[in-house]
Amino acid sequence: MHSFRKIGADLRPLQTTLDEALQRKIDLKTKPKGALGRLEELALQLGRIQNTLSPEIVAPHLLVFAGDHGAAHEGISAYPQEVTWQMVENFLAGGAAINVFARQLGWSLQVVDAGVAHVFGKRTGLIDAKIAPGTASYLEGPAMTDAQCHAAIEIGSELVRQLIQNGCNVLACGEMGIGNTASASLITHYLAPAPLNSCIGPGTGLDDVGLIRKQELLSVAASRYRGNSDPLAILTHFGGFEIAMMTGALLAAGEAGVLIIVDGFIVTASLLIAARLQPHLLDYCVFAHGSEEPGHKIQMDAIGKRPLLNLGMRLGEGTGAALALPLIQAAANFLVQMASFESAGVSETTI
Amino acid sequence: MHSFRKIGADLRPLQTTLDEALQRKIDLKTKPKGALGRLEELALQLGRIQNTLSPEIVAPHLLVFAGDHGAAHEGISAYPQEVTWQMVENFLAGGAAINVFARQLGWSLQVVDAGVAHVFGKRTGLIDAKIAPGTASYLEGPAMTDAQCHAAIEIGSELVRQLIQNGCNVLACGEMGIGNTASASLITHYLAPAPLNSCIGPGTGLDDVGLIRKQELLSVAASRYRGNSDPLAILTHFGGFEIAMMTGALLAAGEAGVLIIVDGFIVTASLLIAARLQPHLLDYCVFAHGSEEPGHKIQMDAIGKRPLLNLGMRLGEGTGAALALPLIQAAANFLVQMASFESAGVSETTI
Repeated sequence: MHSFRKIGADLRPLQTTLDEALQRKIDLKTKPKGALGRLEELALQLGRIQNTLSPEIVAPHLLVFAGDHGAAHEGISAYPQEVTWQMVENFLAGGAAINVFARQLGWSLQVVDAGVAHVFGKRTGLIDAKIAPGTASYLEGPAMTDAQCHAAIEIGSELVRQLIQNGCNVLACGEMGIGNTASASLITHYLAPAPLNSCIGPGTGLDDVGLIRKQELLSVAASRYRGNSDPLAILTHFGGFEIAMMTGALLAAGEAGVLIIVDGFIVTASLLIAARLQPHLLDYCVFAHGSEEPGHKIQMDAIGKRPLLNLGMRLGEGTGAALALPLIQAAANFLVQMASFESAGVSETTI
Repeated sequence: MHSFRKIGADLRPLQTTLDEALQRKIDLKTKPKGALGRLEELALQLGRIQNTLSPEIVAPHLLVFAGDHGAAHEGISAYPQEVTWQMVENFLAGGAAINVFARQLGWSLQVVDAGVAHVFGKRTGLIDAKIAPGTASYLEGPAMTDAQCHAAIEIGSELVRQLIQNGCNVLACGEMGIGNTASASLITHYLAPAPLNSCIGPGTGLDDVGLIRKQELLSVAASRYRGNSDPLAILTHFGGFEIAMMTGALLAAGEAGVLIIVDGFIVTASLLIAARLQPHLLDYCVFAHGSEEPGHKIQMDAIGKRPLLNLGMRLGEGTGAALALPLIQAAANFLVQMASFESAGVSETTI
């Protein structure tokens, strides 16, 4: 599995040579120091990522990775597995929440079949990267083979490399996959790490009985696992293809030095894996929103980050990431466009 | 002062006849029930305000009211009073934070001279509604006369009536006025009500010594006040012209039944007054962001509302309100544009 580690191997800590100049530029804008709060932090981060005093958002792109999960047949979700491919059709028809938000906010959107248990054929707007028609169930063994995991990471990376070559400098990932909160819970349990039950939530909307059944099934899955807590071993055993592909996508984005807007619970499970391989990846991430899925807070605490938005959302698809873009754009815009005290002829503070 | 009360007198509670149909439309969208969190609450509120299943945002308008404060000479702010008119010039030149955010997010922006201590002359983009060149100091008596307060409320109302006649259905107010956090603190103290010191914060950035001086001065101002806690009496004694004008603007927007996006501490001080006169006004309000100015949380608790954004901002100008617009637009868009389970052919939950 050593070749996995090559992706993102050139990932470097952020440049901090411009920090002083950036902070000075922020402080001389016509506003009290610090008055734009987290937008000022974002402006500094953007300047560092792009290594410039005048960062800009170019061609923001959102990739929605879809995959099916062998364990979904066991009763870990409130929805039947067929909803995965039906929602992919909904994405392609432009009718899902992520379509609405992407259109509104200027995201380019593409859907990636990472491993849906359905034959779509050639379709406009759908990237066919199917590893297999769904993973195996981690209740019976590894969800995927090492080769499948490797392939998924490679493909996710390659997709992002192409986007960046075409000019994109902001990436977000979203996902669709009935059963994937269960995978994310197991990954979070091992990698945060945290007690398993604290990482398990209602997902798409399990009731109390359903949640207890999900906890029982995942407890069985964990008890049968004989591997170690190596992030790639965990991904191979418990992951979905969409989670593996996003892991590669995130690593490639960090390696290319572009801003990553991180969605909620599932994407952050991919990030936990990717950041174990390349810790500096976190420097390139903005955390879009706090998911209602309880494991997300555990993830955020584990990496010591705070989300920008807290809207009580728990939808996935990249919807939280999509909604954060105007705030990040606002951070870039104030840094570039606002007048300084001097240029506007405004008196500075008397204290 | 009775004629003040006429403005907003036709303000009615929201229609709830469509509630069931709105909730059903929200629930049948292709997402788990409740998965869009606060956006779903916003969609319901928008539907109620516009009394339709298909709400829309039309010609959102932001009015920035500027005014000077007699008490500003006493040392209640980190900036000299001249910054008020200098910032108005900055608004007119397009260089302030609110200009940047308004341009980015599609707000029409106008600046209103409610009572700045400066002669601007006729200027493009500036509405001359100057009541007087600054208020008197509430340390020595009422900040304004009853007639001035009345006129300011009337003018604010009339400006908004005209906007709405021209098609605007979303209003936000912003403000600029060195010393106006002090006014807002006094208003909040009387109307929340809450202990005075808990309502006082650093404003544009006072240090600890400055904050103690501000507390002492406002304590003197309160101790010299001989009036009652009638909201208009409080406004007349402690208000700024911009705060009075915003009070009228908010009442007129509620009366016309349009959505109001409420900014932070100063605008919410105006709202505390307006909502005392017409309590149903709150039904038309979305609370954009939680300000860092500590009195804002006291205001929000007093009216039992939660802000949408928490970005640690404390700038005023309407910047928090401006940044909330994409979320409100997203709420309208998902309600109008998203497919339903039936239209998209997606299976519903099995539980």
